[in-house]
Amino acid sequence: MARYLTMAAAQLGPISRGDSKASVVQRLIALIRQAHERAVEFVVFPEMALTTFFPRWYIDDRDAVDAYFDSTMPSPETLPLFEEAARRRVGFYLGYCERAEEGNRIRRFNSSVLVDRDGKLLGKYRKVHVPGASENDPTLPLQHLEKLYFEDGNLGFPVFKTASATIGMAICNDRRWPETYRTMALKGAEVVVLGYNSPAQMPDWPDQNALRAFHHLVCMQSAAYQNGLWIVASAKAGREDGFDLLGHSCIIAPSGEVVALSSTLADELVPYRCDIDLAPYYKSFHDFERNRRPDQYEGLLAARGNQRSRADAEACRRYWDGGEPA
Amino acid sequence: MARYLTMAAAQLGPISRGDSKASVVQRLIALIRQAHERAVEFVVFPEMALTTFFPRWYIDDRDAVDAYFDSTMPSPETLPLFEEAARRRVGFYLGYCERAEEGNRIRRFNSSVLVDRDGKLLGKYRKVHVPGASENDPTLPLQHLEKLYFEDGNLGFPVFKTASATIGMAICNDRRWPETYRTMALKGAEVVVLGYNSPAQMPDWPDQNALRAFHHLVCMQSAAYQNGLWIVASAKAGREDGFDLLGHSCIIAPSGEVVALSSTLADELVPYRCDIDLAPYYKSFHDFERNRRPDQYEGLLAARGNQRSRADAEACRRYWDGGEPA
Repeated sequence: MARYLTMAAAQLGPISRGDSKASVVQRLIALIRQAHERAVEFVVFPEMALTTFFPRWYIDDRDAVDAYFDSTMPSPETLPLFEEAARRRVGFYLGYCERAEEGNRIRRFNSSVLVDRDGKLLGKYRKVHVPGASENDPTLPLQHLEKLYFEDGNLGFPVFKTASATIGMAICNDRRWPETYRTMALKGAEVVVLGYNSPAQMPDWPDQNALRAFHHLVCMQSAAYQNGLWIVASAKAGREDGFDLLGHSCIIAPSGEVVALSSTLADELVPYRCDIDLAPYYKSFHDFERNRRPDQYEGLLAARGNQRSRADAEACRRYWDGGEPA
Repeated sequence: MARYLTMAAAQLGPISRGDSKASVVQRLIALIRQAHERAVEFVVFPEMALTTFFPRWYIDDRDAVDAYFDSTMPSPETLPLFEEAARRRVGFYLGYCERAEEGNRIRRFNSSVLVDRDGKLLGKYRKVHVPGASENDPTLPLQHLEKLYFEDGNLGFPVFKTASATIGMAICNDRRWPETYRTMALKGAEVVVLGYNSPAQMPDWPDQNALRAFHHLVCMQSAAYQNGLWIVASAKAGREDGFDLLGHSCIIAPSGEVVALSSTLADELVPYRCDIDLAPYYKSFHDFERNRRPDQYEGLLAARGNQRSRADAEACRRYWDGGEPA
């Protein structure tokens, strides 16, 4: 007997710098209602779904940046979303900026939560592959300062067994790294959900501009096939505060085929009724236990110990301590 | 100043069970001559390029199977190929069945060699991901008994620094595993060359038949992009002894784009002038040292220690010792 789970990417159009979190939550609630009407059981919102993608700017005003972060989830502003989703029996993934007190200091992560159909928090994930730079470069028309504002995630890639499927989370740039999917598949993930805010153009890597959607899709298609995964990927899309974000929210089957794709750059629900049992079918084809050869994968886990990555961590700490940028 | 290397997939049409190795070598030599005429510096021949793909049958006659193997490379039959290639200044990759005496016993691997433009052997590779089964199942219309005839490769994924590029090798099923490419890219590979004998249909996995070419391409496209690699993949293609083999020999750029593709299922040269510097360009975009997070990749190298994989190794040894199949 096949297991079906109707999932949807709940793509968002742009969020302006001036938009309040409360106003964004109203848009998320509208998508939850639409999901309910279309018999969707689980929706995937984008990365940093409550705010503009502020890492595109160097912002000297720490208080203004700090206001993008939330210390609790649900937060006061998102509580109506949690309540409405539970009322409509729609589970969800939500990306947000996390402020956490750990080891006597405040830490900030690019995080996501997984919430079940009863509104119960199943788990949290912190973005492992934080991209971009930590150095303010005012000469660039578009910066990508995630490494300045966020620490590297430190929770690994947890997976959560739910009644309908075993689900793992990723965020944006994580999807370009094959280790992301493999780590979760080895723990039994059947579904990977992820949100993203991907610039449609990159001024410092112009050769790739025409290939942005292709790169986005090809990484996930290959990973879905190689790991026996359903992948639901949800964009913040469109022209946000003057900068274009990629759309192409999609659902990818364990065959690697894109079975649903957004067609706008605005708020849009992209639903699909997923036969979860396709995941074990592809896993049995690859049969990790019989066929993987970890003893031959030399260097895969060699520590990076890289000077630049240490400098990034240092720059992030200095920024939040109120110091000058590098 | 860009570094260019003109490479070609040297696809082969079918090789019948009755064809002599000497007759196949004449076909390889014809492709070397064509490569020379088209200013190709390096060609990639398929996996097991000297024989039919015999693992599709259970063959009780060990001597007949053993005759598919070679103890030296160049072997007496392939020496004319090595000589002609050196004369024409064409380097090559060649897949063959390797018989090796190691630790007081005969071992058999699905192997490939890398030969430079002077005809000098640069290195050898032994297929790490040996697919299929070790159990003879006469009820199947098409078997895949690689695990019966070959041991698992034990040389890891070596890479070789040449004047024009750093080159690594893979074989057939290896291309479906992201660890294959990552292991080599971490050692500096800029080019991965591989040959394959992939059935176009799989009676025991019919749901995938229509997706065979897609799966073949998507794994390599994603890996090329994620690792900054040129990939040259060469098929044994066409209807071989009554069974269809996939074609789609191709060259994939580090952008992930298929830049050259075969259009027949016969002997065919698929050349492309490759700008090797696209490899470091994409590597610098991903910047492994700065951005990979090995500390978060839990379980990636956990030993498999699987009973079935031990049974496969045992079945292979028993077959070559003259015992009955499982």
